[in-house]
Amino acid sequence: MENNKFEVTPYEVTGKVDYERLEKQFGIMPIDDALVERIEKLAGASNFMLRRRIFFAHRDLDWLLDEYEKGNKFYVYTGIAPSNQMTIAQLIPFTFAKWLQDRLDVEVYIQIPDEEKALARDIDFDTAHALGYAAALDIAALGFDSKKTKIFLDTEYAGVLYKQAVRVAKYITFSMVKDAFGFTNKNNIGSIFYTSMQAAPAFLKSVEEGHNVPCLIPLGVDQDVHFRLSRDALAKLGYYKPAIIHSKFLPGLSGAPKMSAHNASDTIYLSDTPEVIEKKVMSALTGQQATAELQRKYGGDPEKCVVCQYYKFFFEPDDAKLKAIFDGERNGTLLAGEHKKDLAKRIIEFVENHNRMKEKIKDRLDDFMVRG
Amino acid sequence: MENNKFEVTPYEVTGKVDYERLEKQFGIMPIDDALVERIEKLAGASNFMLRRRIFFAHRDLDWLLDEYEKGNKFYVYTGIAPSNQMTIAQLIPFTFAKWLQDRLDVEVYIQIPDEEKALARDIDFDTAHALGYAAALDIAALGFDSKKTKIFLDTEYAGVLYKQAVRVAKYITFSMVKDAFGFTNKNNIGSIFYTSMQAAPAFLKSVEEGHNVPCLIPLGVDQDVHFRLSRDALAKLGYYKPAIIHSKFLPGLSGAPKMSAHNASDTIYLSDTPEVIEKKVMSALTGQQATAELQRKYGGDPEKCVVCQYYKFFFEPDDAKLKAIFDGERNGTLLAGEHKKDLAKRIIEFVENHNRMKEKIKDRLDDFMVRG
Repeated sequence: MENNKFEVTPYEVTGKVDYERLEKQFGIMPIDDALVERIEKLAGASNFMLRRRIFFAHRDLDWLLDEYEKGNKFYVYTGIAPSNQMTIAQLIPFTFAKWLQDRLDVEVYIQIPDEEKALARDIDFDTAHALGYAAALDIAALGFDSKKTKIFLDTEYAGVLYKQAVRVAKYITFSMVKDAFGFTNKNNIGSIFYTSMQAAPAFLKSVEEGHNVPCLIPLGVDQDVHFRLSRDALAKLGYYKPAIIHSKFLPGLSGAPKMSAHNASDTIYLSDTPEVIEKKVMSALTGQQATAELQRKYGGDPEKCVVCQYYKFFFEPDDAKLKAIFDGERNGTLLAGEHKKDLAKRIIEFVENHNRMKEKIKDRLDDFMVRG
Repeated sequence: MENNKFEVTPYEVTGKVDYERLEKQFGIMPIDDALVERIEKLAGASNFMLRRRIFFAHRDLDWLLDEYEKGNKFYVYTGIAPSNQMTIAQLIPFTFAKWLQDRLDVEVYIQIPDEEKALARDIDFDTAHALGYAAALDIAALGFDSKKTKIFLDTEYAGVLYKQAVRVAKYITFSMVKDAFGFTNKNNIGSIFYTSMQAAPAFLKSVEEGHNVPCLIPLGVDQDVHFRLSRDALAKLGYYKPAIIHSKFLPGLSGAPKMSAHNASDTIYLSDTPEVIEKKVMSALTGQQATAELQRKYGGDPEKCVVCQYYKFFFEPDDAKLKAIFDGERNGTLLAGEHKKDLAKRIIEFVENHNRMKEKIKDRLDDFMVRG
């Protein structure tokens, strides 16, 4: 049935991703209605990213909720490896983490591995560090509670992380990393070691508390491989395996399977000006016909339409309104120009509000940061 | 001419080590009389480890002394990866570092990589950490000046070291580590990364000062491989390549080419009791004939005699007295029993004095430790 080719690694996503096949390939479980309902019940609210399966798969989420119901509260761990200004796509796990914090009163640990991209790409460490701080501010500005949120950069928190990372590293061989990431003997030893630094925050709270604390990691599904490697190591160390909840990829403006922080014309950065955002959105791929006339006649395909997808992933939480947009695209009443202008307006509004939040919070960013 | 087989790696030393061949193999320079004289002149004193070529080879020592003469003072960096109680053999680089500090007023950085052996061997991290602190006390008790000495354990100083280690790691591939250490794909990623942690203190003072500071590393020649890997990386980062001065191996009591911290009966630990030391020394290999009668008649070979070698390496700094011991062994006037008893007395005296120093200093060990 399926014959399209796609590849999902932490370094690259190519082809049209078939998420059902990916579930089988990665050995992760689909999120079904019952699971969504269970979370909604505990949270006392519905979350559009769950309803729409932007978060579509998981590991051990049932177990995590069992523990929660028994009074064994989890903490949330997520992160971002900065290689450029932060993109709107990169907000997804953080937005979801904030929702979890608001609804379930959980602590959130946010790792910013400012060494990772400097090791893996042609970015120098100082630049990556500065980008890490820019990301920290973008994340804090989403409205996390500073009393329940720790943000840390690896080069500033290695005093805490390295000690735990080496314990994980002892159980991970080069063979395992080679298979998992497609590394060769030419990869540098920092990149090879890195996955154990990413593993450390998944049991750090258990170390701090002196007893096991469940952990939930919301992440883009391309990052799952890190924990395929380290979950077993954590179990060997006597810690819970972290539960994971996986998100789909927000496409690039041109329809690329995953918005890349490195392709400026395909990507909306939180640092983009309104003019730039408008220009970029006006260039976005839609699922529409070649002309307005044809579009009115035949209608378009919301699944192929980047504009529709941005609404779905992020900018239209209201299902009825989203349906109206999708219907308009499908039945030809919504034309590309208007469609894009509306989205541009929405994104500009979001970014302007985000900038106001950043301005407001920037002097107390240190309330979120931990070092050591 | 030479047909004996030997191998020197940081993990194992086998066979009778031919140091001249090792110099060629490693690409290190012999220490000649002119260099010893030059150091003695600067130091205003002679050092028996240099005179006797216990420190026998180097990298860039001429350059280091040129810089020193120009007023560009160096610092000393050495260390020990604890896997057991500290042995008398392991004191060699520290004793030399202390001499340099006393004579040339230099700072000394001492790394105790308490993760290294836990990654490489079947030792748990907590045990390695405790052994690291035991080693720190043994080292501080040698009489270092706490104002000019920094001792650090990797798991407690990773906040400083990791940030520098990843910069080195970017330039070191798995291929390079594989060739240098004989690693395979089965080695764990912590061990693979480790060499960059060992590289960090070699330019740490330059980072701290904001300008290049020459560094001298006294080490057992088996550790040279770490810096063969990282010296080039340091140059690429814009730092001086560290100068290195290499020591020979103190043999095990049974005549093993290198005293091993893992073979208790072959090794004298600083923690051994006088009774244990006496018993161990009495079992030591000498270069003597099978019976007292034969020894009186034919004499023995001081080069093969472990007892003579212990005097030479550590316990008899006075050349005239050492000559008398060697002569006695050679001409048959010094019999094994007396020979060993004398050495045992000397070692017991040393260890008892060392224990007194430890007792005296233990409450101010923190003056030496840096964390971060």
